[in-house]
Amino acid sequence: MTPIKLAEKLAQFSDAWSPKIVAELNGQHVKLVKLRGEFVWHHHANEDELFLVVRGTLRMEFSDRAGGPVSRTETIREGEMIVVPRGVEHRPCADNEVCVLLFEPAATLNTGSAGGERTVAHPAWI
Amino acid sequence: MTPIKLAEKLAQFSDAWSPKIVAELNGQHVKLVKLRGEFVWHHHANEDELFLVVRGTLRMEFSDRAGGPVSRTETIREGEMIVVPRGVEHRPCADNEVCVLLFEPAATLNTGSAGGERTVAHPAWI
Repeated sequence: MTPIKLAEKLAQFSDAWSPKIVAELNGQHVKLVKLRGEFVWHHHANEDELFLVVRGTLRMEFSDRAGGPVSRTETIREGEMIVVPRGVEHRPCADNEVCVLLFEPAATLNTGSAGGERTVAHPAWI
Repeated sequence: MTPIKLAEKLAQFSDAWSPKIVAELNGQHVKLVKLRGEFVWHHHANEDELFLVVRGTLRMEFSDRAGGPVSRTETIREGEMIVVPRGVEHRPCADNEVCVLLFEPAATLNTGSAGGERTVAHPAWI
């Protein structure tokens, strides 16, 4: 029950695509993550996912099919957020570094349906 | 699946202590609320509550007893957040207007255990 300072937390890590947990409530995690470049196409079978842009500009690509191609793109700027519902194929992209706050069920894996080497099975708390 | 612009949403209302829903995911609501002055002492029996300060400075008072007095105070500034766990008696205070983003279960009532005339039973979507 002390304030969680997002800027201080963001200063504690630099690795991209590796979410860090900053809070837990109601079975949900609040995570911070830095994005640089393109992520893998994936969806989450059972979890809706919220992306709140704290710094930078996020490009979210959507597809009608697993693995692409892009059917729609949304741009999410600082102070904006987007909800990606469960089952929706998406690929977060960051042309320049983007700092994002995620709000999602504690069980959510970053790569969702895709798995693979970029999966962070046990995100660290910071 | 379009960006939710917090500043645009905040410009759509001015009433204090009346949360507006801006997103729903995983049984949780994301709400925006403007705070001015002191709220009522209360707790939530079954819900943890996250306050993320979008604008202004929030003072959160805590008490060991229902209805006060204050046992501890935390100051939460812009870009900071705090989680108030279920069962914890609290009173949000805003010496000047504060704009807050709330993450909490969809069933959460603003006045929690206290009830009364400041209860917003059915928050509006904006």
